[in-house]
Amino acid sequence: MSVQASPRPFAPDPTLLDKLGDVAVRIGLNIQKGQQLVITAPLDAVPLVRRITEHAYRQGASLVTTLYADDAATLARFQHGAEETFDTASAWLANGMADAFRQGAARMAITGSDPTLLSAQNPAHVSRANRAASAVNRPAMEVITSFATNWNIIAYATPAWAQQVFPDMAEDQAQAALWNAIFKASRVDVPDPVKVWRAHNALLHAKARYLNEARFDSLRFTGPGTDLKVGLAEGHAWAGGSENTTTGIECNPNIPTEEVFTTPHCRRVEGHVRSTKPLFHQGTLIDDIQVRFAEGRIIEAHASRGENVLQRILETDDGAARLGEVALVPHSSPISQTGILFRNTLFDENAASHIALGQAYTKCLFDTEGQDAAALNARGANESLIHIDWMIGSDQINLDGLDANGHATPLMRAGEWVQS
Amino acid sequence: MSVQASPRPFAPDPTLLDKLGDVAVRIGLNIQKGQQLVITAPLDAVPLVRRITEHAYRQGASLVTTLYADDAATLARFQHGAEETFDTASAWLANGMADAFRQGAARMAITGSDPTLLSAQNPAHVSRANRAASAVNRPAMEVITSFATNWNIIAYATPAWAQQVFPDMAEDQAQAALWNAIFKASRVDVPDPVKVWRAHNALLHAKARYLNEARFDSLRFTGPGTDLKVGLAEGHAWAGGSENTTTGIECNPNIPTEEVFTTPHCRRVEGHVRSTKPLFHQGTLIDDIQVRFAEGRIIEAHASRGENVLQRILETDDGAARLGEVALVPHSSPISQTGILFRNTLFDENAASHIALGQAYTKCLFDTEGQDAAALNARGANESLIHIDWMIGSDQINLDGLDANGHATPLMRAGEWVQS
Repeated sequence: MSVQASPRPFAPDPTLLDKLGDVAVRIGLNIQKGQQLVITAPLDAVPLVRRITEHAYRQGASLVTTLYADDAATLARFQHGAEETFDTASAWLANGMADAFRQGAARMAITGSDPTLLSAQNPAHVSRANRAASAVNRPAMEVITSFATNWNIIAYATPAWAQQVFPDMAEDQAQAALWNAIFKASRVDVPDPVKVWRAHNALLHAKARYLNEARFDSLRFTGPGTDLKVGLAEGHAWAGGSENTTTGIECNPNIPTEEVFTTPHCRRVEGHVRSTKPLFHQGTLIDDIQVRFAEGRIIEAHASRGENVLQRILETDDGAARLGEVALVPHSSPISQTGILFRNTLFDENAASHIALGQAYTKCLFDTEGQDAAALNARGANESLIHIDWMIGSDQINLDGLDANGHATPLMRAGEWVQS
Repeated sequence: MSVQASPRPFAPDPTLLDKLGDVAVRIGLNIQKGQQLVITAPLDAVPLVRRITEHAYRQGASLVTTLYADDAATLARFQHGAEETFDTASAWLANGMADAFRQGAARMAITGSDPTLLSAQNPAHVSRANRAASAVNRPAMEVITSFATNWNIIAYATPAWAQQVFPDMAEDQAQAALWNAIFKASRVDVPDPVKVWRAHNALLHAKARYLNEARFDSLRFTGPGTDLKVGLAEGHAWAGGSENTTTGIECNPNIPTEEVFTTPHCRRVEGHVRSTKPLFHQGTLIDDIQVRFAEGRIIEAHASRGENVLQRILETDDGAARLGEVALVPHSSPISQTGILFRNTLFDENAASHIALGQAYTKCLFDTEGQDAAALNARGANESLIHIDWMIGSDQINLDGLDANGHATPLMRAGEWVQS
């Protein structure tokens, strides 16, 4: 029996929650008149979903449909499901969502579920279920990642997540602390968040434009335990802040976001690098990662904790030991300043410069029209089933842009941009 | 601003709630190993959804997907949506569900949303939205009503519904009272509900079999204000209790259920009839209905309250003033004995014998294979966009079965079956 009266749920500050909903709709999605909106959210996020729903209708959305996920129901599957059932996924729903996006519906994802929900369940069952879900979700993901429609990811401080971030606090305190950090990182704790977001996007666009015009051959990170030269893909494109959909809608796919990022050359990475923050991967903590690259590939990898999980990640496929993304975040970013390890990529990847093992974003290459995967790979774009970000930036890291002759332009010193 | 800490939700008796979930899965759906299950539910029903989900996985369900509806989000649409948006419906989701059912997924609907949610909203907008939703839901409804898969409807005592049923009670008291009535009516307040349901199904099947073998030409209801002869369709079939899907799965589509029902002849109803309970239609109460039939059609209609709404219903289309169903329920049924007006058809139609204006069930005709709508109509099956049940039974009503020569067989006296 598990039916009990729930405790009175924690209520985040209503004014800030409303501002978060408003920013999600007007800046995150930039929802258009007559657009449908499909929201996915954990059950705990009902108060934020209601604010988003109201703002979406006020902006002219034609219909808002929310698909809620219940952690308890997910857990029940792994606790009580039959062995032969774990390869099942709801293709009918995934196909329906893909249809919605193809027909122009906007997409909002609210993140914040318990990051360790399934850590005590049979890993073979979890892995089979994840694989089946990934397979049926691919058509919808392709519409999203190609920016055929406008989309946004935003966070809700669920009790389970808050307890992971602040394990020593009471549940209410932990949620209050996580909400404060989310409101701050999402830049809604200001009088006019929409104006602040427009200015923030302008700064990120200017930084990406500068880097695109500079056309560096490679980047060099130096600092304690790190001397890493990351070659950039041929015709790499820097991105950051808002993006334009193929239909011409400007949206901010991530709230918060602090990074500018591009595609490294998967066969031109040399040297060694040490992680500056722990990596959480499917409930496992991997700390103090130290790896060495030669010709783009990791040839030596250690970690003070979780090394065997790291090794297993690197063995996923050939591309898993090569880079698919490099991203630059100044140490003074608001998320970094909170000093909080969020255990959620949406936040942690925006706290420090980072690199990602695995699949590259074709969005981060110029002039890709008509090029197939082999052509993109020839330009340096990595291919893999995984895409795992880990942090290599800190206030002790310097960064230079190198031209083809090795001439260095200082980009960051002690973790801060040299150019404002 | 409407974000506030919710009050501590009322928790129904956990043992009875678990029994309701078990009965819903084993008797209502009779879920098969490897079947997917699609649940629709109001957000308040999370505790029952979790019990159903666990029981479904224990019985071998491959994947349970719940689509929650939030009354607050529905209301926000009509409060803030733009004039031109109300003809929009989520075809992508309705088509996905139809696909799921065609591929063999079982269907569970949990009822209990606020019956008056939209009563203060613009009726033209509500009507446009309902029409758009009905149109996109038609393919899924066809799979369901043709019993191509197993399905079940069950109830959850939401606070809003409980307040409608018991307006003079405090919210907690009202929910407790409504839960007591639901548990009783759903026959789960007994040591072995599954055994009790099997016995109940056997009685309803025996009654339907008796009536099918008797092959009455018509039924005659007599009592205060009522002398109504209802001709039965050619080859009419009586149904009640569990049904078999076309794939051979025995399921109980309604929990609770007390009725045996069949298809009347839409051109052979004569006489007058008075309603014995109020009818709630889209938030409006229609009381003390008195109508006169000639050649199957209502030629005179009055009501002491809501007469104009009744007149508008009858004008929907030609079939709206003719009968599509006649159902027999003894006055001693547990729902009738509660004395409660539930304002929810799932319960109220099982409290008394009733007739329905509008569309007939082709399920309630023998030998329909290869017959089109015109052929079924020639046998007496009514056609209409509506199907609205209203109660004509009570402890003062007698019922006879008549053969083609007018010879009467007593069926009910003072609201009770003559044959046990």
